Amino acid sequence: MKIYADNAATTKMSKKAIEAMLPYIEEYYGNPSSLYSEGQKAKEAVEGARERVARCINAEAREIVFTSGGSEADNQAILSAAAIGKKNGKTHIISDTIEHHAVLNTLKKLEKEGFTVTYLPVHENGIVRVNELRAAVTDRTCLVTIMYANNEIGTIQPIKEIGGICREKGILFHTDAVQAVGHIPVDVKDANVDLLSASAHKFHGPKGVGFLYARRGIKLESLIEGGAQERGRRAGTENVPGIVATAAALEEANASIADLSKKLEKLRDRLILGLNRISHSALNGDERMRLPSNVNFCFEGIEGESLLLLLDDKGISASSGSACTSGSLDPSHVLLAIGRVHDVAHGSLRLTLGDDATEEEVDYIISSVEEVVTYLRGFSPVWRDLVNGKSKFIL
Amino acid sequence: MKIYADNAATTKMSKKAIEAMLPYIEEYYGNPSSLYSEGQKAKEAVEGARERVARCINAEAREIVFTSGGSEADNQAILSAAAIGKKNGKTHIISDTIEHHAVLNTLKKLEKEGFTVTYLPVHENGIVRVNELRAAVTDRTCLVTIMYANNEIGTIQPIKEIGGICREKGILFHTDAVQAVGHIPVDVKDANVDLLSASAHKFHGPKGVGFLYARRGIKLESLIEGGAQERGRRAGTENVPGIVATAAALEEANASIADLSKKLEKLRDRLILGLNRISHSALNGDERMRLPSNVNFCFEGIEGESLLLLLDDKGISASSGSACTSGSLDPSHVLLAIGRVHDVAHGSLRLTLGDDATEEEVDYIISSVEEVVTYLRGFSPVWRDLVNGKSKFIL
Repeated sequence: MKIYADNAATTKMSKKAIEAMLPYIEEYYGNPSSLYSEGQKAKEAVEGARERVARCINAEAREIVFTSGGSEADNQAILSAAAIGKKNGKTHIISDTIEHHAVLNTLKKLEKEGFTVTYLPVHENGIVRVNELRAAVTDRTCLVTIMYANNEIGTIQPIKEIGGICREKGILFHTDAVQAVGHIPVDVKDANVDLLSASAHKFHGPKGVGFLYARRGIKLESLIEGGAQERGRRAGTENVPGIVATAAALEEANASIADLSKKLEKLRDRLILGLNRISHSALNGDERMRLPSNVNFCFEGIEGESLLLLLDDKGISASSGSACTSGSLDPSHVLLAIGRVHDVAHGSLRLTLGDDATEEEVDYIISSVEEVVTYLRGFSPVWRDLVNGKSKFIL
Repeated sequence: MKIYADNAATTKMSKKAIEAMLPYIEEYYGNPSSLYSEGQKAKEAVEGARERVARCINAEAREIVFTSGGSEADNQAILSAAAIGKKNGKTHIISDTIEHHAVLNTLKKLEKEGFTVTYLPVHENGIVRVNELRAAVTDRTCLVTIMYANNEIGTIQPIKEIGGICREKGILFHTDAVQAVGHIPVDVKDANVDLLSASAHKFHGPKGVGFLYARRGIKLESLIEGGAQERGRRAGTENVPGIVATAAALEEANASIADLSKKLEKLRDRLILGLNRISHSALNGDERMRLPSNVNFCFEGIEGESLLLLLDDKGISASSGSACTSGSLDPSHVLLAIGRVHDVAHGSLRLTLGDDATEEEVDYIISSVEEVVTYLRGFSPVWRDLVNGKSKFIL
């Protein structure tokens, strides 16, 4: 059996998205800035895509800036909000400890420039507490940046409540919605979101394209200077095929959210139930307030990397956490933030189901993980010490 | 007849590039940061592409950073060199007056931060004079940024001589080679180039991909913070299909440079000869030191925009200058820099031939332009004044 269970890392482009893209590669390949008809066709395609993307999150077309991906959108959103804050003498930002590094590293940069950042804890369930956010607000707070859903443990934050507080206090609210857009309903107006980042390849669109929603009236700083593309908010010839494919993929994903969520939640819960039967294991992140496709477990006494390689041998593609930090030997900052100790955090497994996942596949994953965990524990010195009572079980 | 003569704005993706790309969309779509086999295949593809791209400009793989395009590469190169300069107390930059706005606007940003920039003139032929560059160097100069070939008038700068001076003086040398790479031979070692920007869609690769060459040892500032992709020099999931297609397109383009240049230069010169027969017209930029496919003319007494629209009706896609500024009503800064007055600069036409251009097409362009120019002059008040002697002909 061959199962791709790492859809939080990247998804396969949908057929519709590929079909939408190809004519803009093969036929209407003009530069959207050109006056002649091929160029104008390309321009219309980009503007049409902008409208369609906007509609999917209840925004207006002019509020969408196409970028090269989610990381770029995160950087631009936060740096722009910080620039506005600085102008008004406000240099305090509120975020949390489980953000993606595109957010965390941008905040680090701002801290070097004199900003102060409050990183809210997320507690054992991986969710920010709204009363703690409210308490952290000062009259120097210019920005709250809290992700919509976490990329490792899938927990969904109380975005609407956070948006309400920010609007009430006159603070800009950015949310990294890379894992949410196309997977759960996102409505920027309803949730009072001012800035939102998304990435196309997370919802069956192309790699190398993302977008930034910026509420009307919010001045964006351009990360890339040059031509007047994207109303001066992002220079460089537009990736027309990628942009068109992004709109097609998002519309398709949005149309199926309701049905797919129900199906995936059932499979997710079946998977959680099955993995819970493995001794000394534990689900990471809240059981209910999580993405329909996300399962993240820790298994005591094993190394996550070996687990992944043996699962790969069984045809299962999974991850230990974020793909973006997989080269690193440090344990996941997200798992540490929810209270997992180093050793336990190292034995983590993230499974993110695809749209076409089946019960049969889920059961195959469960039996494979059980088999591999048992096998690895068989020659793990850490596990031997646990079993012999030399060290204490945590999970 | 249908002729796309705006290949400096963008090119059609080559069949080979599309074929190289598709498997990484449809099959090997994994995230290159993932440990399992699909991810590793994607990673190998990216690293293979990096090696192939490097070879095409005589660089090493580790010296190539894939970006979202030429503008991003220009921004990153210049900001990185400026950061190095600032550290060493050197805040003077030398550039010229006909750079792309991705360079000019980045320099403007640096001027606001306290850098001083010398913009060398390019004279009537559109070419920087090496002795003037040498004279502009001070002991506070940290960077020379001179484009390889101009995007509007196609003039090729004396890159090797400039590189020699910079190396001799210990100054970093960046060249925006967006119009050169894949069109004329580029050898970063031979030309002593330290930083070089390129864009894939200019050499029959995909839109939304470019690369920055940075000589070993030059520390790049990351424009996009986040994951550890591109050795920490550019965060964000790699655009695997785009990167693979870029390598395929560049190899293909490089392999045909010698033959294609010869063919295109002949056609270019035929086109120049033909357009020169139109009264009160003039070629912009040096006749010989120009890209094989570039022809740029000014016609007195007409409006460039009307010319383009009527040529579009005749099936010819052309431009008045840079696509990136086509929304602007200002005349081209490049044409002003080579001494064209405002009125004349407004009547400009850029024709950039495709690889499959023919004599027949060139002759059709000549007769079409002649016809349209004559027609437009027929009801141009500016032309009437010229003919009546109320104002003086310049060309």
